[in-house]
Amino acid sequence: MGFWKNLFSSSESITTSPKSMSGDPDAISNETRIVFSTERDIDLYELEELCDAVGWARRPLRKVRKALQHSFLVVTMWEQRGVKRRLIGFSRATSDRAFNATIWDVVVHPQFQNRGLGKALMKYTIKKLRSEDISNITLFADPQVIDFYRRLGFTLDPEGIKGMFWYPDS
Amino acid sequence: MGFWKNLFSSSESITTSPKSMSGDPDAISNETRIVFSTERDIDLYELEELCDAVGWARRPLRKVRKALQHSFLVVTMWEQRGVKRRLIGFSRATSDRAFNATIWDVVVHPQFQNRGLGKALMKYTIKKLRSEDISNITLFADPQVIDFYRRLGFTLDPEGIKGMFWYPDS
Repeated sequence: MGFWKNLFSSSESITTSPKSMSGDPDAISNETRIVFSTERDIDLYELEELCDAVGWARRPLRKVRKALQHSFLVVTMWEQRGVKRRLIGFSRATSDRAFNATIWDVVVHPQFQNRGLGKALMKYTIKKLRSEDISNITLFADPQVIDFYRRLGFTLDPEGIKGMFWYPDS
Repeated sequence: MGFWKNLFSSSESITTSPKSMSGDPDAISNETRIVFSTERDIDLYELEELCDAVGWARRPLRKVRKALQHSFLVVTMWEQRGVKRRLIGFSRATSDRAFNATIWDVVVHPQFQNRGLGKALMKYTIKKLRSEDISNITLFADPQVIDFYRRLGFTLDPEGIKGMFWYPDS
């Protein structure tokens, strides 16, 4: 648990390539860190680029802006090199701020997948929701990520409860 | 479709026993109507009584108040006799107000079940969400109500998407 404890301390960042260890006095500016944020001031084009990278269908930015505004929680994950940062992950949650939260739009840039960063993003998201005393965290998982969420402690159809969707007639 | 069209017209009520047809001039006050509302000014004790009637575990009223306040939509269904009204159904939804809404806490008083009122409550809830241009309406259904929601047009696990839950370690 030491890793997560450290990850979620005040800095809310993970140093992934501590190049400053090399002794080069300039190296500190090249240090790569993974930084989490709940700031909502997100460049929507940067977010669109991230979603494009995983092949999601484009959505009107006007609606994306509204969705972010009315989400209870917006989490971004950044690769930070010196003063430069790049958006590499995202998640958000709707909530009644009392009992239930539902996580939507979890994405990690393909270049940063398979390094535990999706797990870190979700752990951070869950921690933030838990800090607001929300006990029932839900999501709708695509088939290929069900095991990923299961490893994070999510349960499939507990007591036979099923996720259901209603779409307008096309 | 005439019934629903009529149901969701401006009055937003169903006359279930048109006793005023009897010719008795006082009968109008005995007319029983089912009325829907999205007003949030709900007596929490009355809501608790309704939830008690279906055997739900009690929840702190402070948290219920907060959840109603931060729900995107709160729907109540009332039996109205003259000027007296009784809370007989409830549903609410969280939402990002752009893409997704999730319906929670759907309840119909046992004395009013099996009359199509649950269906009417859900149709009203869906209509209200659709009027806000929300296209993805979701919920988590207990096993015994899956067929009820299916008949309303909800799909189970579309394209293998599964509802998942995370609870805190007890």
